[in-house]
Amino acid sequence: MSRTKIKAILLNEQTDYAVTIKGWVRSFRNNQFIAINDGSTINNLQVVIDFEHTDESLLKQITTGASLQVDGTVVASLGKGQRVEVKAEKVTLLGECNPEEYPLQLKNKPSLEYLREIAHLRFRTNTFSAVFRLRHSLAFAIHKFYNEKGFVYLHTPVITASDAEGAGEMFKVTTLPFDNPPRTEDGQIDYKEDFFGRATNLTVSGQLEGELGAMALGEIYTFGPTFRAENSNTARHLAEFWMVEPEVAFFDLKDNMDLAEEFIQYVIRYALDNNRDDLEFLAQRLVEEEKSKPAAERSEMGLIEKLEFVLNNKFERITYTEAIDILLQSKPYKKKQFQYDIQWGTDLQSEHERFLVEKHFKKPVIVTDYPKDIKSFYMRLNDDGKTVAAMDILAPGIGEIVGGSQREERMDKLVQRMEEMHIPQEEMYWYLDSRRFGSAPHAGFGLGFERMVLFVSGMSNIRDVIPFPRTPKNADF
Amino acid sequence: MSRTKIKAILLNEQTDYAVTIKGWVRSFRNNQFIAINDGSTINNLQVVIDFEHTDESLLKQITTGASLQVDGTVVASLGKGQRVEVKAEKVTLLGECNPEEYPLQLKNKPSLEYLREIAHLRFRTNTFSAVFRLRHSLAFAIHKFYNEKGFVYLHTPVITASDAEGAGEMFKVTTLPFDNPPRTEDGQIDYKEDFFGRATNLTVSGQLEGELGAMALGEIYTFGPTFRAENSNTARHLAEFWMVEPEVAFFDLKDNMDLAEEFIQYVIRYALDNNRDDLEFLAQRLVEEEKSKPAAERSEMGLIEKLEFVLNNKFERITYTEAIDILLQSKPYKKKQFQYDIQWGTDLQSEHERFLVEKHFKKPVIVTDYPKDIKSFYMRLNDDGKTVAAMDILAPGIGEIVGGSQREERMDKLVQRMEEMHIPQEEMYWYLDSRRFGSAPHAGFGLGFERMVLFVSGMSNIRDVIPFPRTPKNADF
Repeated sequence: MSRTKIKAILLNEQTDYAVTIKGWVRSFRNNQFIAINDGSTINNLQVVIDFEHTDESLLKQITTGASLQVDGTVVASLGKGQRVEVKAEKVTLLGECNPEEYPLQLKNKPSLEYLREIAHLRFRTNTFSAVFRLRHSLAFAIHKFYNEKGFVYLHTPVITASDAEGAGEMFKVTTLPFDNPPRTEDGQIDYKEDFFGRATNLTVSGQLEGELGAMALGEIYTFGPTFRAENSNTARHLAEFWMVEPEVAFFDLKDNMDLAEEFIQYVIRYALDNNRDDLEFLAQRLVEEEKSKPAAERSEMGLIEKLEFVLNNKFERITYTEAIDILLQSKPYKKKQFQYDIQWGTDLQSEHERFLVEKHFKKPVIVTDYPKDIKSFYMRLNDDGKTVAAMDILAPGIGEIVGGSQREERMDKLVQRMEEMHIPQEEMYWYLDSRRFGSAPHAGFGLGFERMVLFVSGMSNIRDVIPFPRTPKNADF
Repeated sequence: MSRTKIKAILLNEQTDYAVTIKGWVRSFRNNQFIAINDGSTINNLQVVIDFEHTDESLLKQITTGASLQVDGTVVASLGKGQRVEVKAEKVTLLGECNPEEYPLQLKNKPSLEYLREIAHLRFRTNTFSAVFRLRHSLAFAIHKFYNEKGFVYLHTPVITASDAEGAGEMFKVTTLPFDNPPRTEDGQIDYKEDFFGRATNLTVSGQLEGELGAMALGEIYTFGPTFRAENSNTARHLAEFWMVEPEVAFFDLKDNMDLAEEFIQYVIRYALDNNRDDLEFLAQRLVEEEKSKPAAERSEMGLIEKLEFVLNNKFERITYTEAIDILLQSKPYKKKQFQYDIQWGTDLQSEHERFLVEKHFKKPVIVTDYPKDIKSFYMRLNDDGKTVAAMDILAPGIGEIVGGSQREERMDKLVQRMEEMHIPQEEMYWYLDSRRFGSAPHAGFGLGFERMVLFVSGMSNIRDVIPFPRTPKNADF
């Protein structure tokens, strides 16, 4: 008989039918009650065995982490805590799990830090199975949202010869040897001999290529890995992370903000509708985690309450200039509690963003129209000549979750910005061609997917929402 | 008024309503008829302008590739070839396109080879807009299929320190300088100083990490970029390509074959249901392309006929040993028309695979149970001690589109294979842990996404089904 998933058994109203289940032991009590999980749901299924008629050596092998097949009957449960259970007729050991060696056998609950060191096994915990089912749902919701709107999913290249975004340090990709690499006559490394015939890096963004797609297909999005070789050891940075980048022809900044807001709300709603059990577990986990914090640092809302709040309230929309004014009028500024100075023209620091989002507006905030000098060359210059049509979305507890802009579609203005910012035009002929031939207003943004998962899961370290985090000095597994 | 997409106008049964459309000029006839396209569909919309009341300088700027806004009314068309057209009330130029400079202005139809050189503009052609809308639909169908089955989409790492799959040459990922890189006392490159504190590469497969997920979440799939630093300049190889890799706990080889077959048929059916216009265009393109071939080399079936045939016929399933027997009995073997020798124990060459698929069975073929010595260490050893529970799916015109196996879940057998094949066990402790703790039978496969797009689109070069192909000496854009 083919296997029935535990999720299906728990959702099924019926009882008194035969099943075969396969999964891993989460606990075994009184030589009688096995809590078994197969990854399909956060909830375990209780299996009741007749220990008097079960081989003693098998009983000894039913340990946490062991893999079992159970043939039996689904019956109404007499015990508390579950509606149904499986009365086992036959238990078969598929894979043993020595309790003396198994790292998840610990009596004390393993810490998130320790689980990070055994990331190959942490999928087997309630917390991480919930996080990764949730991550899946968020990823699927992203594809579903854009597909329904008629966007084309465009796979922009990971290996790139362009460094034009200037978004940060890049990883080299090469097949040249470090020992005695080929050199040109004047002693430089001869990248003509490299695999691609030139120096190449890992991409920091698919945006520029995405724009090329939008200028023909109308509406595209990317969803792929991007990279930063920055030595940032924080709870919010990864060297390898996934980014979603929609790019839309004929969009202005307002259309762009509307899309981003609708998008974020859609994805959160999808998770609430499809991952309720996982979210309830993660909400409870967060409550437990925050018990160790001083009361003042605890979240004002529970996880699910927070998500519903984001669904039910429009994001605040303010200009950078308005943001600066609010900050200059704020208590922490007047009391000199901000570490960094505030003046028009400098970028907002994390402490400023958090004040705006968490203290002042208490909801997601879209900040627009930043000074041109602190933003990228491709952002559209506003009529004031000083600001660009940029937008950042700031989320409570996370900070920047989206960065975007209307793009500069006017050839002369774009070239002028490239000159000012020393972007090589010859290498970027393909980007300029999109303005040379049939240019059109367009806009887009990038959403850091792991920051989205952080926000929805209530986890606090970005390394805990990607299966195998890549950070400075860490590329395990 | 907000823009209406051309696809929506063409699908709408109504007429006599006002619209604003935005898009790019495909052609302009008689100073009166503009064929305009916005990427939402392969079909153009005809816009009729009143040239007597249109500014002459504007008329001159309505050239192929120019970007326009048209405000007007949808009316029933009197002309042939379209049901509706838009009577323009106002035409606004958004972006001009100088016909003297525009590469797609050529009188002669540009070749696919030339379009590859201007990949940043080729989205604007009918062929490539159809290919990339199709690619989108296939990607979405993949996510939809696995989501419906309860699989978890797992993002396995792109940067990896493991080279255990041995699937081919890898790209180095590094931040070390070529000039005077740090060295250890004994003169070796000191990778401890590199970003990740060790030597790292671009992944060739997410399978091994995927197995770790399957051993807890039950059913996972990856869908991400993978890399080969092989100097293969063929129509079927890319240095950077996307791969789909499902991995399923408690699956045996038959389950694996059933999943792969259902998966391929689902994705093709989705494309037929959702991209009919694009497929009909691509089918016609293929007919035109094949007119230049000798009759004997032309496809026996049209593109759509071929796809429907794959939907309506079970894949043939044979063992490697049976395949060898068929080949040894074949006409081309007896007539010495095969270039490579055939004997039990050597891998099937492309010419052999094509004979089996295109001449002998005339449909997709799943070949199973290959000799262990020509397959990877992780494939499950069959009871004969000579073969492994591998499967390759071979598709007409494409060759291998899927490679997979049941995995070796037995610790002792796995360790023995690793020793025989010189796979370092210490580095792979995390992989072995999945067998040490609660091991279970499981299986999975990898599908080369671009080969799937090739198969469904009827294109003949893999560089024409990925937006920006990466191949030896080529990383443009």
